[in-house]
Amino acid sequence: MLTFYWARNTCARATHIALEDAGAIYEARRVDFAKGEQRSLEYLKINPKGRVPALVTPRGILTETPALLVYIAQTHPAARLADLSDPFAFAQLQAFASYLCSTVHVMHAHDPRGARWADEPSSLADMKQKSHGNMRDCFQLIERDLFKGPWALGDAYSVIDPYLFTISNWLAAHGVDVAEFPGVGAHFRRMNERESVRRVLAAEAA
Amino acid sequence: MLTFYWARNTCARATHIALEDAGAIYEARRVDFAKGEQRSLEYLKINPKGRVPALVTPRGILTETPALLVYIAQTHPAARLADLSDPFAFAQLQAFASYLCSTVHVMHAHDPRGARWADEPSSLADMKQKSHGNMRDCFQLIERDLFKGPWALGDAYSVIDPYLFTISNWLAAHGVDVAEFPGVGAHFRRMNERESVRRVLAAEAA
Repeated sequence: MLTFYWARNTCARATHIALEDAGAIYEARRVDFAKGEQRSLEYLKINPKGRVPALVTPRGILTETPALLVYIAQTHPAARLADLSDPFAFAQLQAFASYLCSTVHVMHAHDPRGARWADEPSSLADMKQKSHGNMRDCFQLIERDLFKGPWALGDAYSVIDPYLFTISNWLAAHGVDVAEFPGVGAHFRRMNERESVRRVLAAEAA
Repeated sequence: MLTFYWARNTCARATHIALEDAGAIYEARRVDFAKGEQRSLEYLKINPKGRVPALVTPRGILTETPALLVYIAQTHPAARLADLSDPFAFAQLQAFASYLCSTVHVMHAHDPRGARWADEPSSLADMKQKSHGNMRDCFQLIERDLFKGPWALGDAYSVIDPYLFTISNWLAAHGVDVAEFPGVGAHFRRMNERESVRRVLAAEAA
């Protein structure tokens, strides 16, 4: 049995969809960021970073989206969510995940969460302003160099698909239309039609 | 045969050490950041992100430190640099790598490379100033919650060790003494004694 901690409109959505794709048996617990629950003593015992996602497993607690996505794929092999047997293919999956977490997610976070990296209101406004073009640049690179289609890594659906979808959702807040990117835009629409995605979006809206 | 692209004093050092640890057969090519070679048309064909590390393999080019570290471990199993057979242990390795790349490296980069995220000189100064405390906070969390000792993941050396070592090297530039953190400080000294590390540091100094 797994217990999954998530919050609305965060990168935890990727792991949430992957759990659904995997047919995993899990209990989902929402962390209310509006109430600051991620900084409560109770939650910091789950994840001392005060972030989501976190996954409580029988062996201990795991965090960080790229780690959780591969863990779910590896522990639910029947769902075929990642090819771990081919080191080159797996490295391409890992590189995509790493770009999303360390570059694209970070570019985005400079809009709503600039206070992680600077204090002055003028700095936060500057970072917010620059984040919009940075997000467009990132998605141009994804469209041109990383995205293979119809799924992120090519013919086979993988855990990268819910991750890309989750971050594609953030483009609108930057004034960027996902349809600017033909491959990623079609991927976004295709993801919205999946039952696993619909179930997670319904859970977030509940 | 592998071709490895690196630059001085960058996160590519982690992959460079892992290649040495693995006994990999590779050619190392230095990218001179001082001359802006990472933005040359020639290098952008290798890595369109204009960053290091990049690894040219017989099947194609791979980027992103967490992906390269696991790829090297997986393709050089005799060196035992990662346990991919145990999904939980592997997820812990992945979570450590992900925290280093998406949080700690990013905290650091707001000092020398703030222009990625803001334009005004006052913003860059603000980010630089805040980066120092952020780095201390990150290493306090690593020392308390992630580092097991004597190696990063416990008794077995892994690809996380050169990655942690590489980023520990950046603490001094933030005015933080690695000796503030007993476990990580001892790890830093132990890493400096390894032959693989000495070879890479000598190559960077050449």
